[in-house]
Amino acid sequence: MDVSVVIVLILVRWTCSISEVEMVKADSDVSDRLTLESVRDSLIRQEGSIVFSLIERAKFPLNAPTYDPSYFSMPGSYGSLVELVVKQTEAVQAKAGRYENPEEHPFFPDDLPPSQVPPHKYPRVLNPAAVFVNVNKKIWDVYFNKLLPLFVAPGDDGNYASTAARDLECLQVLSRRIHYGKLVAEVKFRDEWKHYEPPIRARDKKTLMDLLTAPAVEKAVKKRVAKKASIFGQEVKVGDDSDENKGKYKVDPAVVSRFYGDWVIPLTKDVEVQYLLRRLD
Amino acid sequence: MDVSVVIVLILVRWTCSISEVEMVKADSDVSDRLTLESVRDSLIRQEGSIVFSLIERAKFPLNAPTYDPSYFSMPGSYGSLVELVVKQTEAVQAKAGRYENPEEHPFFPDDLPPSQVPPHKYPRVLNPAAVFVNVNKKIWDVYFNKLLPLFVAPGDDGNYASTAARDLECLQVLSRRIHYGKLVAEVKFRDEWKHYEPPIRARDKKTLMDLLTAPAVEKAVKKRVAKKASIFGQEVKVGDDSDENKGKYKVDPAVVSRFYGDWVIPLTKDVEVQYLLRRLD
Repeated sequence: MDVSVVIVLILVRWTCSISEVEMVKADSDVSDRLTLESVRDSLIRQEGSIVFSLIERAKFPLNAPTYDPSYFSMPGSYGSLVELVVKQTEAVQAKAGRYENPEEHPFFPDDLPPSQVPPHKYPRVLNPAAVFVNVNKKIWDVYFNKLLPLFVAPGDDGNYASTAARDLECLQVLSRRIHYGKLVAEVKFRDEWKHYEPPIRARDKKTLMDLLTAPAVEKAVKKRVAKKASIFGQEVKVGDDSDENKGKYKVDPAVVSRFYGDWVIPLTKDVEVQYLLRRLD
Repeated sequence: MDVSVVIVLILVRWTCSISEVEMVKADSDVSDRLTLESVRDSLIRQEGSIVFSLIERAKFPLNAPTYDPSYFSMPGSYGSLVELVVKQTEAVQAKAGRYENPEEHPFFPDDLPPSQVPPHKYPRVLNPAAVFVNVNKKIWDVYFNKLLPLFVAPGDDGNYASTAARDLECLQVLSRRIHYGKLVAEVKFRDEWKHYEPPIRARDKKTLMDLLTAPAVEKAVKKRVAKKASIFGQEVKVGDDSDENKGKYKVDPAVVSRFYGDWVIPLTKDVEVQYLLRRLD
């Protein structure tokens, strides 16, 4: 890239999402800018990434050998091919500094190589105990066992490496969205700490869950992700507004909506409760 | 995943794209099924992947240190961070067998580790000399120097590893689409070999390029990718059909359309010509 272009472009900050704008501010004013609305805006934007990742995974059939530990053997006993691709790609990204960002959570945190890039000053918004909240094992389980069989077609086209790369993409965007619950919890705590402090001290998960639950918002989220799946997963033709392909989607909007309702939203709230229970540590 | 689910799902083949359906057939009937229409269908589907990958990259600002060789130093002198991430991720995917598929082309083919998975019998559709046609150096150049500055916002949010991962995604889908020109050329050659053989023997690139050029098709492609960029890059709201966000897109449809016209289509035709010149070897 031309140095001049880089220099010109780098002069102006971009406004994009809470993670990329609000959070980039100096620590001192992060608290002011962290609002429930800004956090929700980011969650809304992440829905698109999730829908895209599922549509891209659905271009491949199931490709079962990707998940079969007996399919291949490699020194280091990685289990299945998808485990190898996820572990080793996470290792590459760890060296490049991905997991220095508190919004990113590896699926295989053990033996991850350290970052080899200069440290970046991510703002400290969360309680440091946030680092102990990681539900990726559960996300791995529900993605492969609950979601995947519902939105990919059966079959085997041999593209297991590409399939695993697409799975990693799905896992990463789901993980990012679900662990964003830490920020949701933080902003809710800041807004209404008087309500949250007693159940936190009493370790009353039930009351915390009730406080965190907004049925109307959850309903709207489910409706919106279904709409996104139908818009982003449609066949697009030029000069053809016929209804020929109407109702044909690359990933069933009802599956995405149901997965959100059954897993994404509940797991996000699990993260919120786990984070809150450590909020006063 | 439940073994029973896998067994049930694996019983049926999925129908998806030429690479995943037509090409998976036994060698004997591939010739019959490889048609200009099926190849074009695959190219159309790949447009969506390209638009998705650009929208996902555009979530991050430019993040110039990702491309600056002086930003970090690591044993092995990888150059910039994006080079490290691309090289090392390609190495992971190579071990998992990605580049055994003749439709996939690495950006750093030197020193790529061999596949460590059992060989998959990809159908032999192309002339074996196809392996010598790889325009990834040019794709790398135009992606970083021509396209990237046009669709990402200026700024720096520190997420260089994620940025590089998104760049790799863009590069891979562009590479796949452009090298699909080999299949386009093969099917055109089969359909009209009498027209192609004389200029191939005469090494007459100009005539070959004229034979391969269909201005009406190219115009339709450019129009369709712009439409896809506007549909997939819109803000989606539930119960809000106001025009508030009309015309606001995550990636400018005109930029995508122009990039297709200026680079994607011409590079695809370059691949077609290069392949045809070796077609009779």
